Amino acid sequence: MPVGTQGTVKAVSPEELEDELDAEVILGNTYHLHLRPGLEVIREFGGLHEFMRWDRPILTDSGGYQVFSLAKLRKITEEGVAFQNHLNGARMLLSPEISMEIQATLGSDIAMYFDECPPYPCDRDYAEKSLGLTTRWAQRCKDWTEAHAPERQLHFGIVQGSIYADLREASAKALVDLDLDGYAVGGVSVGEPEEEMFRAVENAEPFLPVDKPRYAMGLGTPPQLVEMIGRGIDLFDCVLPTRLARHGTALTARGPINLKNERFAKDTSPIEEDSNSYPCRKGFSRAYLRHLLKANEILGLRLISLHNLHFYLSLARRAREALDSSCFTTFREEFMTQYHQSDQAT
Amino acid sequence: MPVGTQGTVKAVSPEELEDELDAEVILGNTYHLHLRPGLEVIREFGGLHEFMRWDRPILTDSGGYQVFSLAKLRKITEEGVAFQNHLNGARMLLSPEISMEIQATLGSDIAMYFDECPPYPCDRDYAEKSLGLTTRWAQRCKDWTEAHAPERQLHFGIVQGSIYADLREASAKALVDLDLDGYAVGGVSVGEPEEEMFRAVENAEPFLPVDKPRYAMGLGTPPQLVEMIGRGIDLFDCVLPTRLARHGTALTARGPINLKNERFAKDTSPIEEDSNSYPCRKGFSRAYLRHLLKANEILGLRLISLHNLHFYLSLARRAREALDSSCFTTFREEFMTQYHQSDQAT
Repeated sequence: MPVGTQGTVKAVSPEELEDELDAEVILGNTYHLHLRPGLEVIREFGGLHEFMRWDRPILTDSGGYQVFSLAKLRKITEEGVAFQNHLNGARMLLSPEISMEIQATLGSDIAMYFDECPPYPCDRDYAEKSLGLTTRWAQRCKDWTEAHAPERQLHFGIVQGSIYADLREASAKALVDLDLDGYAVGGVSVGEPEEEMFRAVENAEPFLPVDKPRYAMGLGTPPQLVEMIGRGIDLFDCVLPTRLARHGTALTARGPINLKNERFAKDTSPIEEDSNSYPCRKGFSRAYLRHLLKANEILGLRLISLHNLHFYLSLARRAREALDSSCFTTFREEFMTQYHQSDQAT
Repeated sequence: MPVGTQGTVKAVSPEELEDELDAEVILGNTYHLHLRPGLEVIREFGGLHEFMRWDRPILTDSGGYQVFSLAKLRKITEEGVAFQNHLNGARMLLSPEISMEIQATLGSDIAMYFDECPPYPCDRDYAEKSLGLTTRWAQRCKDWTEAHAPERQLHFGIVQGSIYADLREASAKALVDLDLDGYAVGGVSVGEPEEEMFRAVENAEPFLPVDKPRYAMGLGTPPQLVEMIGRGIDLFDCVLPTRLARHGTALTARGPINLKNERFAKDTSPIEEDSNSYPCRKGFSRAYLRHLLKANEILGLRLISLHNLHFYLSLARRAREALDSSCFTTFREEFMTQYHQSDQAT
């Protein structure tokens, strides 16, 4: 899922997402959209789809992660999380009920349950208490959605439990008991080593039903995506394609390249010779993209964002095809070998 | 002509310029492109068209105006202008021959003769001496292009003479004697009152041939464009559509509106109800555009730039149609009356 934090996938238009990239679903951030433009505005449009002119599915997160990463003066209680927002410092509260209500107003197709995302590292005692809260909050999310039945909205729970295998197992089982539409692994990509990230997924995955989508939140590099798919994950959101673009980094089958590098100054070739991405297909050269980046021209961000989003979405598509034709192991090996070639890495 | 200062019309792609806006010609800035990416890069591509992937005509200015508005420590001699560039302070020289050579390397379809653009106000003595230089430089430009005959390139001279009618007349006549492909009125929009701008054109126009294009450089607001067309001008370049967009201002038939204004916060209507611009046609609302501006999202600049460029290009098209059907006077009156309605101006 391309990430549309503030009601737009950065630098990209809805038409490009649909016609050029064929993105099937995008993510919107509940915390950001709640602050700005705010629900009063969204209500005028009957939801986020009409506001941003996007007809295809939207997944909204619970807002919990941003409360932990962006907001100030957090106070976590049984009720929810009181905090001051990062924009104007106003006092706010997010709770399971409030999060589900906001997401219902946004009208997303998939809403995430409100959870606490513990930090890394996290001691056993804190992780256990935090998970207790997340599990009780999940029940309250379910109660709210059953009472209010938001139209056509699916609901995913989030497995927590930090690095503790038994907590991950308990969390997964408790959520599966609620019989949800899908399940996410949360509390990953919060600063832990990569092995811990894989282990968190491995610790949760065996307890999640095979016939429901599994979603690893906030991940990751292209190799991490492939590894996660190999561990049974179906769905990802990741800001990397657009964030890397803003830093001048383009993704290729042979690893990332930084187009600001001097050696691309006269390079008339496209980002990748055999890529079907928009800038490659249209013949935009590395030298031109470098020039746009150096001159701070928006078209540079646009073109590299389109390329990187194409890279991610096409990677996911190829992984799915490999799974369908039972050759995922070969696909993974070939991808990893080629991606880690260092001949053009910068 | 949309302005592509640094090899890109800000925030807009070549495909949008062609398919969406049907821009027939764009402007590239010789000074900027000479500094960055530099001619060594442009030569690798055989010219600016291939570098920026734009097949349609490009007009390049002479670089003179930017030397006067951006560069530091200028010293004007008979030879040319020595200066330190605004990017890294390196010492450089622009002369008639160098400007024409750079423009030949850029491979523009229309190259402008190198001139001195005197400031406003400008006393008679300075204006006269400056015009003498501009006229002698024009001959040197012609000598250079005749000796080197850049392929398929047209050449326009620039009428100077500040606010002095007889100097404008002398300048126009001297250039017409050189039998060029087109003629521009320069030294306008440099801080003078609007009446002086119109008068500069009026003072030059009677001496320019009717069968060659006349170009007023660096203009202007939509009403100024219409007034200039009424005074016989055929061609304009203007940064306003994209610059206004960056400030959140969208152009409408009833005058400019600033979409950052609070009163648009819940406005579900498009920028203009009956506009055929991309954001209006696709149903993007004023409230959404306001949100994108407030959140510093690139899509906001993109959409408003597309709208404003559409506004300018469609205004020029309608003026041409009005001229063709001999109803320009009515068109001008109706446009002015509607544009100066203040009911939505901000």
